[in-house]
Amino acid sequence: MTINGQFQQTNNNREAQTLNRAPVTVLGLGPMGHALAGALLKAGHPTTVWNRSAGKADALTAQGAILAETVTEAVAASPLTIVCVLDYDAVHAIVGPLGDALRGRTLVNLTADSPIRARQSAEWAAGHGIEYLDGAIMTPTTSIGQSSAVVLYSGSEAVYQAHRQTFASIGGTSVHLGEDPGRAAAYDVSLLDIFWTSMSGYIHALTLAKAENISAKELLPFAQGISSILPDIMAALAEQVDNGQYPGNGSNLLSAATSMEHIIDTAHAHGIDTRVLIAANDIAKHAIDAGHGTDGFALLTEVLRKKHG
Amino acid sequence: MTINGQFQQTNNNREAQTLNRAPVTVLGLGPMGHALAGALLKAGHPTTVWNRSAGKADALTAQGAILAETVTEAVAASPLTIVCVLDYDAVHAIVGPLGDALRGRTLVNLTADSPIRARQSAEWAAGHGIEYLDGAIMTPTTSIGQSSAVVLYSGSEAVYQAHRQTFASIGGTSVHLGEDPGRAAAYDVSLLDIFWTSMSGYIHALTLAKAENISAKELLPFAQGISSILPDIMAALAEQVDNGQYPGNGSNLLSAATSMEHIIDTAHAHGIDTRVLIAANDIAKHAIDAGHGTDGFALLTEVLRKKHG
Ligand SMILES: NC(=O)c1ccc[n+]([C@@H]2O[C@H](COP(=O)([O-])OP(=O)(O)OC[C@H]3O[C@@H](n4cnc5c(N)ncnc54)[C@H](OP(=O)(O)O)[C@@H]3O)[C@@H](O)[C@H]2O)c1
Ligand SMILES: NC(=O)c1ccc[n+]([C@@H]2O[C@H](COP(=O)([O-])OP(=O)(O)OC[C@H]3O[C@@H](n4cnc5c(N)ncnc54)[C@H](OP(=O)(O)O)[C@@H]3O)[C@@H](O)[C@H]2O)c1
Repeated sequence: MTINGQFQQTNNNREAQTLNRAPVTVLGLGPMGHALAGALLKAGHPTTVWNRSAGKADALTAQGAILAETVTEAVAASPLTIVCVLDYDAVHAIVGPLGDALRGRTLVNLTADSPIRARQSAEWAAGHGIEYLDGAIMTPTTSIGQSSAVVLYSGSEAVYQAHRQTFASIGGTSVHLGEDPGRAAAYDVSLLDIFWTSMSGYIHALTLAKAENISAKELLPFAQGISSILPDIMAALAEQVDNGQYPGNGSNLLSAATSMEHIIDTAHAHGIDTRVLIAANDIAKHAIDAGHGTDGFALLTEVLRKKHG
Repeated sequence: MTINGQFQQTNNNREAQTLNRAPVTVLGLGPMGHALAGALLKAGHPTTVWNRSAGKADALTAQGAILAETVTEAVAASPLTIVCVLDYDAVHAIVGPLGDALRGRTLVNLTADSPIRARQSAEWAAGHGIEYLDGAIMTPTTSIGQSSAVVLYSGSEAVYQAHRQTFASIGGTSVHLGEDPGRAAAYDVSLLDIFWTSMSGYIHALTLAKAENISAKELLPFAQGISSILPDIMAALAEQVDNGQYPGNGSNLLSAATSMEHIIDTAHAHGIDTRVLIAANDIAKHAIDAGHGTDGFALLTEVLRKKHG
């Protein structure tokens, strides 16, 4: 499907689309939904908004947004509806009772959830004659409408191409990851895995530092220094994982486990909860017991894949 | 103590020190000890080396290092001995039986271990009339002798000042963190806490991505992107932790837990071990149950401090 195909599909507002100002409905005005609607308004899209609880649209209506009283009214206002709420349970609480109101229209779901649920939502949409695209927003609300925004999409390439110009108004980098509607969510959960695990480590480190009379401010420049060496290490380990080869010449699992034990011992001595690192170390020790002590850390991808203990 | 004081203390080799070429002994020729000896040789220090098992000194003796046959002979060769081995058990296995061979000399322990053991080692050294400094190397072997090396020292400021020029030969940034001999190790365990927890998250993410047919190479640029937003978030959370205030307006514990659950569900569906993230999520859920759902993630420093479950 070409950009022209989209004009047939969404035959109202042909002129607005030509000017890159297709009408858009945004369901959900939490911090992210609010940011999305704001960016669309700023780019000149006629924007209709709706939120479960009242009072969240005031700043947006002041900028020209139309506040719909019901979800049915909201989705009727635009050929394209973007939904961005807490999770897919919330999405289905909103669009589930709509009957045929979305039939023949497009729903872009920018709510974060698991790839399994993204695929289920795509099936549900197909069953209701709804053009569906799933997406995941990888950057904070402040990035929306700016060049720093990163939004991943997956599902129908045709639907993606049809609304590219609207996605451009959300800002920054838009990437279509393929026809599998779960693919954006699969990237999302993998990347959030890095994010939340790293954040847990940082918060634990600040707790440990404080117990050792080191303020967060004192630790910060060194913590940022550690963080800055990660991208290169990530690249090296990515290659090992794709090749299924885990040389331990730089640093091996035995030295990783020794290092983790020093941290665990110190945290224990201060009565700090250390379950996260104990779990990480148990996985390393399991690999060492299986004879992998002199292999590299990335060998743990193989251990994690086969659930144990 | 001034640099002059050091000349009295280590009265042999006055000329070599003036030329910034003080003799140094290095005990332990694992990857890091080898790198340290190599950098010292390159900077022109008369360097004596020793390792428990044979055959590790060949490349160094070819560059002019003197291989000592015994530890006693090694420490007698230089006023300053640097030890860098697996852990403090290994250090004490090496220097414990020395008797008075180190009395009146300086021992700089660049082996990683816990702050408790660093303080115990400093006490042991004081009891044997040994000038002692503890240190932690924060960068990989390839950084040693280069500007990118970061080495933290703590313990006697006088000892640190006396050997600054030798430490400069190790390269890059040397920081003296104070008189508490455990302080370098306290920074080290805190920073390694960030490192190993982040690495565990990355390895888990690669495992999850692979189960979703995403190669490590495909995920890598996005993973590096996530990594690059961490330093700013770290700075914001450090301020919250030092102030004891954890506003949840950007992102709160409830949304963090929701996000972690999507990851856990997806990993479980693929049979992937998820103990690390389950532990992280349990800590967040504990805080939510205690009424902190709308507080920020950094509130968890307070939860971790009070051990539970
Ligand atoms: N904030 C960020 O920086 C960020 C970054 C990347 C991705 N995301 C993703 O964007 C999505 C939205 O996040 P957010 O920051 O806007 O806040 P949020 O707290 O995740 O979502 C709040 C929105 O969800 C609605 N909602 C919750 N339960 C509902 C239900 N049962 N029925 C109807 N509506 C319901 C809320 O309505 P009420 O106002 O009526 O409660 C509100 O509109 C999430 O999936 C999040 O993971 C956010
Ligand atoms: N490698 C890095 O990138 C890096 C970075 C920062 C900090 N560090 C720290 O530097 C220290 C040394 O690390 P490394 O990379 O050189 O390798 P390592 O595997 O931690 O240590 C190997 C060295 O320890 C010796 N050793 C182990 N047990 C011993 C014992 N019981 N008695 C005597 N010697 C013993 C080994 O002697 P044999 O040869 O006889 O086995 C070898 O010299 C560690 O504390 C590490 O955490 C390393």
